[in-house]
Amino acid sequence: MTEDVRMERDTFGEIAVPNARLWGAQTQRSLQNFKISTEKQSPELITALAVIKRAAAEVNLGLGVLDEQKARAIMQAADEIIAGKHPGEFPLAVWQTGSGTQTNMNLNEVIANRASELLGGERGEARKVHPNDDVNRGQSSNDVFPTAMHVAAADAIVKHLLPALKTLRDTLDGKAKAFTGIVKIGRTHLQDATPLTLGQEFSGYVAQLEHGIRHVEAALPHLYELAQGGTAVGTGLNAHPKFADSVAAAIARLTGLPFVSAPNKFEVMAAADALVFAHGALKTVAASLNKIANDIRWLASGPRCGLGELSIPENEPGSSIMPGKVNPTQSEALTMLCAQVFGNDVAVNIGGASGNFELNVFRPMIAHNVLQSVRLLADGAQSFNDNCAVGIEPNHERIDTLLNESLMLVTALNPHIGYDKAAQIAKKAHKEGTTLKASALALGYVTEQQFDEWVQPKDMVGGTAS
Amino acid sequence: MTEDVRMERDTFGEIAVPNARLWGAQTQRSLQNFKISTEKQSPELITALAVIKRAAAEVNLGLGVLDEQKARAIMQAADEIIAGKHPGEFPLAVWQTGSGTQTNMNLNEVIANRASELLGGERGEARKVHPNDDVNRGQSSNDVFPTAMHVAAADAIVKHLLPALKTLRDTLDGKAKAFTGIVKIGRTHLQDATPLTLGQEFSGYVAQLEHGIRHVEAALPHLYELAQGGTAVGTGLNAHPKFADSVAAAIARLTGLPFVSAPNKFEVMAAADALVFAHGALKTVAASLNKIANDIRWLASGPRCGLGELSIPENEPGSSIMPGKVNPTQSEALTMLCAQVFGNDVAVNIGGASGNFELNVFRPMIAHNVLQSVRLLADGAQSFNDNCAVGIEPNHERIDTLLNESLMLVTALNPHIGYDKAAQIAKKAHKEGTTLKASALALGYVTEQQFDEWVQPKDMVGGTAS
Amino acid sequence: MTEDVRMERDTFGEIAVPNARLWGAQTQRSLQNFKISTEKQSPELITALAVIKRAAAEVNLGLGVLDEQKARAIMQAADEIIAGKHPGEFPLAVWQTGSGTQTNMNLNEVIANRASELLGGERGEARKVHPNDDVNRGQSSNDVFPTAMHVAAADAIVKHLLPALKTLRDTLDGKAKAFTGIVKIGRTHLQDATPLTLGQEFSGYVAQLEHGIRHVEAALPHLYELAQGGTAVGTGLNAHPKFADSVAAAIARLTGLPFVSAPNKFEVMAAADALVFAHGALKTVAASLNKIANDIRWLASGPRCGLGELSIPENEPGSSIMPGKVNPTQSEALTMLCAQVFGNDVAVNIGGASGNFELNVFRPMIAHNVLQSVRLLADGAQSFNDNCAVGIEPNHERIDTLLNESLMLVTALNPHIGYDKAAQIAKKAHKEGTTLKASALALGYVTEQQFDEWVQPKDMVGGTAS
Amino acid sequence: MTEDVRMERDTFGEIAVPNARLWGAQTQRSLQNFKISTEKQSPELITALAVIKRAAAEVNLGLGVLDEQKARAIMQAADEIIAGKHPGEFPLAVWQTGSGTQTNMNLNEVIANRASELLGGERGEARKVHPNDDVNRGQSSNDVFPTAMHVAAADAIVKHLLPALKTLRDTLDGKAKAFTGIVKIGRTHLQDATPLTLGQEFSGYVAQLEHGIRHVEAALPHLYELAQGGTAVGTGLNAHPKFADSVAAAIARLTGLPFVSAPNKFEVMAAADALVFAHGALKTVAASLNKIANDIRWLASGPRCGLGELSIPENEPGSSIMPGKVNPTQSEALTMLCAQVFGNDVAVNIGGASGNFELNVFRPMIAHNVLQSVRLLADGAQSFNDNCAVGIEPNHERIDTLLNESLMLVTALNPHIGYDKAAQIAKKAHKEGTTLKASALALGYVTEQQFDEWVQPKDMVGGTAS
Repeated sequence: MTEDVRMERDTFGEIAVPNARLWGAQTQRSLQNFKISTEKQSPELITALAVIKRAAAEVNLGLGVLDEQKARAIMQAADEIIAGKHPGEFPLAVWQTGSGTQTNMNLNEVIANRASELLGGERGEARKVHPNDDVNRGQSSNDVFPTAMHVAAADAIVKHLLPALKTLRDTLDGKAKAFTGIVKIGRTHLQDATPLTLGQEFSGYVAQLEHGIRHVEAALPHLYELAQGGTAVGTGLNAHPKFADSVAAAIARLTGLPFVSAPNKFEVMAAADALVFAHGALKTVAASLNKIANDIRWLASGPRCGLGELSIPENEPGSSIMPGKVNPTQSEALTMLCAQVFGNDVAVNIGGASGNFELNVFRPMIAHNVLQSVRLLADGAQSFNDNCAVGIEPNHERIDTLLNESLMLVTALNPHIGYDKAAQIAKKAHKEGTTLKASALALGYVTEQQFDEWVQPKDMVGGTAS
Repeated sequence: MTEDVRMERDTFGEIAVPNARLWGAQTQRSLQNFKISTEKQSPELITALAVIKRAAAEVNLGLGVLDEQKARAIMQAADEIIAGKHPGEFPLAVWQTGSGTQTNMNLNEVIANRASELLGGERGEARKVHPNDDVNRGQSSNDVFPTAMHVAAADAIVKHLLPALKTLRDTLDGKAKAFTGIVKIGRTHLQDATPLTLGQEFSGYVAQLEHGIRHVEAALPHLYELAQGGTAVGTGLNAHPKFADSVAAAIARLTGLPFVSAPNKFEVMAAADALVFAHGALKTVAASLNKIANDIRWLASGPRCGLGELSIPENEPGSSIMPGKVNPTQSEALTMLCAQVFGNDVAVNIGGASGNFELNVFRPMIAHNVLQSVRLLADGAQSFNDNCAVGIEPNHERIDTLLNESLMLVTALNPHIGYDKAAQIAKKAHKEGTTLKASALALGYVTEQQFDEWVQPKDMVGGTAS
Repeated sequence: MTEDVRMERDTFGEIAVPNARLWGAQTQRSLQNFKISTEKQSPELITALAVIKRAAAEVNLGLGVLDEQKARAIMQAADEIIAGKHPGEFPLAVWQTGSGTQTNMNLNEVIANRASELLGGERGEARKVHPNDDVNRGQSSNDVFPTAMHVAAADAIVKHLLPALKTLRDTLDGKAKAFTGIVKIGRTHLQDATPLTLGQEFSGYVAQLEHGIRHVEAALPHLYELAQGGTAVGTGLNAHPKFADSVAAAIARLTGLPFVSAPNKFEVMAAADALVFAHGALKTVAASLNKIANDIRWLASGPRCGLGELSIPENEPGSSIMPGKVNPTQSEALTMLCAQVFGNDVAVNIGGASGNFELNVFRPMIAHNVLQSVRLLADGAQSFNDNCAVGIEPNHERIDTLLNESLMLVTALNPHIGYDKAAQIAKKAHKEGTTLKASALALGYVTEQQFDEWVQPKDMVGGTAS
Repeated sequence: MTEDVRMERDTFGEIAVPNARLWGAQTQRSLQNFKISTEKQSPELITALAVIKRAAAEVNLGLGVLDEQKARAIMQAADEIIAGKHPGEFPLAVWQTGSGTQTNMNLNEVIANRASELLGGERGEARKVHPNDDVNRGQSSNDVFPTAMHVAAADAIVKHLLPALKTLRDTLDGKAKAFTGIVKIGRTHLQDATPLTLGQEFSGYVAQLEHGIRHVEAALPHLYELAQGGTAVGTGLNAHPKFADSVAAAIARLTGLPFVSAPNKFEVMAAADALVFAHGALKTVAASLNKIANDIRWLASGPRCGLGELSIPENEPGSSIMPGKVNPTQSEALTMLCAQVFGNDVAVNIGGASGNFELNVFRPMIAHNVLQSVRLLADGAQSFNDNCAVGIEPNHERIDTLLNESLMLVTALNPHIGYDKAAQIAKKAHKEGTTLKASALALGYVTEQQFDEWVQPKDMVGGTAS
């Protein structure tokens, strides 16, 4: 059974394309030349490219360099892609030409064929709209693809990642406030230390996320600078003088984000520094989430042979044999994806450092990693929030037991009986496995009443935080 | 329109599963609890899990601990999965529990339901085969998943990566031999140096791949050690004493690879060192391929304003405007994927370093990265071979021009007229932009006949390589 | 020959310390217990610790909790360290306890002994100033060390890195302006592309550094938040309520940088996110510098067999045999150190992600890497500026030759004779190895006058940048 | 006060060198041109270079191309360097030319001056031995430096790292054997799991190190291949045909390691794959050590509020206030340095991937990282062994308490009363916080005698390991 095909052409000649597909010759050629692994260009990137094509058609119409009928059809076709109506039409691998030219042509071809159909024409060589002359008018892959990377990254960060981080921050902040009165043992070097409240411990997580949100936001201004209008090498050859600013304004309007035309097109095309820096913020968020997820799974370890200070929601069977075994699966997913973000960071760094002259040709790889990291952190934070953080509860009894067993409380006696006697009490208790109080009374340094009055964990947690 | 569902159960209770699907309650629960990004468990891993399930059923049958009818149905169902007949049944994310339990259950559930149907039963709670008691008999996710990782990685390396590397090595070796007589300028520090043959230059690439193949092979013995039989924590609790060895033997037979039961189950379950080391070999291959791909694109740079010593195949339009612009797109894809492998290496290292006590719970992430890297390198090497390396041709004229323009050939005069006079000749030529010969004759240090006799690049390339 | 020693004590008992040394028992014990490699705590960190000790003494004096004589002696001893007068007294390895406690004690001990001598006392157990009770008063290693990391990093960034980056930016900006009129071939994918000016090319480097400076500056506010006052676990136990703010103010005054007391002490002690983010900015700068250094060495490649468009200063013999061989050694040093910064980034990420509960115990390693990266980038940028960038000169003749040989100029004929005929001209020239003009005239599509009028590279470089 | 200097010359002219120093003009010039950070070339590398110089002099003497007197003086001078007699003569930065030429010249200059003095001559321009013509005879930095990297790395691995790893393995193996009978709770996902012996747990660490040793050994054969004899670009121009093999043999004899001349010189000079692969083994060892160090500090956490199953040696005061607070400082140093090794790995990968044409010019950076990693892992393993591992002791009481509190033991009842009733027992115990036995008896499913007979942790640990 042979597939129904049509012949499409590019400067290399004819090539058979499945008739069911809107793409054209160059997309088909890339499919055949780059049979490498399974990673496809990210949907966020395809959408961003469609936004650019729509904006360019609109601007070209306004500048009088594109026929109105064609422009309207291109805009409609682009809108369909943005609306997710052509999900099967963007089959190209991440591992293609480093400029992303083939994916830019994929968009040009699909939009040209679809626009032709919208105008009552057909798909294929007789199409009424030309992929290069019409859809790609005033553009070059060399400015389109960097622009799409900035648009996709900024959009995903603002609309997906930041809201998820804020949700998790708010949940943890709620916990921090609810846990204000719960005094617990502190731990440094994994060793028992002086006490703090569980609320204070959680306030640290909240502060991490607060800072993380600010770090990510600090990466946005550079991402808001767009390459569009630089054309082949940044000089803007063949683009209308007003094209760059007008397209940036149109993209800003379409996305609701404050995109501007990059003041220097050479930088934004030859390098990918905005994305390298943005990923630097993403990996910082990963470091924060990793710390939080780790703390929570350790505090929830047990139920009998771990720390056991927290209960986390039980979402799925942890073991077919053991009730009470709640595996911290959300923490595990989160720490795994943080490791991935750290790995992606290296790939982005290498790609970003490897531009030559007028163009960086590690673009599809950089885009893939940045967008994956945004997705991982956003979805991961949301999943951790919904399936773990919201349900965290303190195990009051266990927290109290550990706090009271700790020898660290002896610190409170220092002002009253001096360091040396306090140390004697603690050493005796440690050696004999008894409580501090028993040791203190046995040594006769304090009365029971004094001990109970002076050794008050709640007085040791200061007033600096929740 | 509501989807047609059935109710499945696990220890958490009932949950609706699409009737069209063979998976069960735990798979469904994971789908709902881990809506994180788009990365799914790799097909190679699913196949390896099916191989394990098939082997386990066969061994359990032989040991008399599994009913023959059930065992045969399980084996048949597993064979169907191995043959790729159920591609839509493994929908779980990489980002799930770090032990891969949910994906192990996905296999158990799909096989149980399918085996039940093969036995004339139905899918769902009334099924004739039990996911845990029958399909997972004698197994724990904690030994199944590490086993699957080793099987999938070793299999992909032996059957996919090594052949691709050997193909590329052979192609480059053919080029090295064909280019034996072509003397060209050498370059160190990007600066003109003494000459060598193009064959010698290519022989270095061949030697890199030879070593790379040996490095990858050195990683196999550790990968051939399987965790199966360790069950929950490595002690083999509840597994038949002969189970571990028998399953390893069955997997070896099914895959044609020399798998053995790991002599120490605690190591193979608590750590992932075999995969960390294997990825160390993969990243070394990436370093080699990156060097080769870079050299080739630089040597093919131009056509007029670059080095231009090589021609590479023109596979697609490089630009709609400029004939002769052959973008080195295969080099670009290859260098991009090498950067990805370097990134994946970091993720694997972090995951491998992060085990606790009896189990490493960064497994799906590690598996994802290792298998992706194998796929990238294998497909990348093959694509580079087929679409670039086989078609590399020397530009004889350009190579000769550059060689003869070089001032480095003056080195050949040292033995005849001494370093000082040779240096004078070169400096004069450099300063005045003339040829060495013109400079030498102008200075009167040699006759034209002497110069032509003594300055013979082909005598400067030694005899150590092709 | 036995070394002259004195006996010092800590809670573990007596230990012999060289009499020539100001350090005490805990420093000596660390020396003996951590004989690991050769990396010592960075001088910048030691200075920052001395600044903290000085500030704390001043604040404790003001709060009335430290005797004036002792406080003044501590301040004087700390000032001596800041002035570099005790370089041999800080011998501890980076690889020690993860809290940096031993290095904090190193400072406490040296200052106590030195302050004792300043007060007319002796060094050793009979000293007049106590390392813990006096020098470390109101402090814990757990807040001192994180504070020192922020102070050292911010100080090195503001006083060392940013000035070096600005110097290099200014140099390159000067070049960009000087090179405004030099039209040259553009290169994308390493292939000849449409022209731009050398000034435009350099303006991209300037823009990279401009953004890099802003990225680094964006990391400062978080670094300006100090942990001091959190004491053991962040609660401020045993510290005077005014201590935190007063110390931050004193440190700000002493350094001239706007340090403040961290609003949340738990975050700044349990995590190292400010440093992870700061290093994210550093690695972005590394990506920029790597691109710039690479471009420059490639543009200066040759002298005969490379691109040869730029001349760079010849600073040392490149080869004893070949005049004109100017190795791009400054580019090589710079790209090597950028690779190191990318490596350091991973170490910092892992350290930053690995805190537990109330304390991150990867601190000395993080400090080591951050401070090394700052030093590498600052010194590297300065060295590259002084020994390479300032001396970059265009090779006008070579630039012109390449520009005129390029086939890309055919683009300028498109508006006049159409794409098809232009392509024919270029293809013919490429095939026959002739110039565009010869090809155009041979085909008869333009007159010589038309060609000379229309094909003007200087009209193809737009007006968007220098 | 002016320093006493002499004038030395190179092809750039005169330069003042401190008279107290043996180095010459090129070393001095590098010092002035590369004022970048504080990292110097590693002592191991300097020693390896001296070994090469010694071997080359010996071979040149044997081949009759070097005067005997000079050869003997060079050999003696090199021997002095190998013996560590000239520690202050190698001041150059890692961050210099990427070929290491300047450090090769540093050796040539120091040896030439020292050999001259040994022959009764002076240091400086009137010296009796020439740095290039005599010391560097038959060599090029391009083959010397790669050779030195292989020699230094292999030597440090064989004589420093492998012994340290074997020592630690033996210590842990001793512990594994001593802990055979100690049954303890297993932990997966940080959650209580079925029991194993402490000996089994430690046997996993032993197996990790066993594999790690084999992985490191697998990297040696490639390191044993030496570049020496390739001279400038790998062709061996100007080197005696027997030089390569003879030098490799001499180096093998001098080091006691089986070095050979690399069969392909182009690979070993243009790439650094042997070191990339070797570092892949090093990072695998880091992953193993990180797991071991983490487990041990967690098992020793407490003393009251952690897991507390192990006691580790108390080597220094953990806190001035709390007896019994033993910070796991050796684990902290070890995990910090493992993070550094992971970072170094990335730097090495980038360097290794970045060669161009006939030479890799990231050499000093690669050497720095590889040798640092070897030193860190060797010293770190030794320090951890001596100051922690040898003193690890089980806390029998705590281990028993946790084991007996665990609900996991219910698994043992499955064969007797069935899964459902066993689950009921466990759930009731979990809910009510009682023991399994109390719950079982309350439910009436077993008698006390039956419970005591059936629930025997020691029967649950299998027989597969110590």
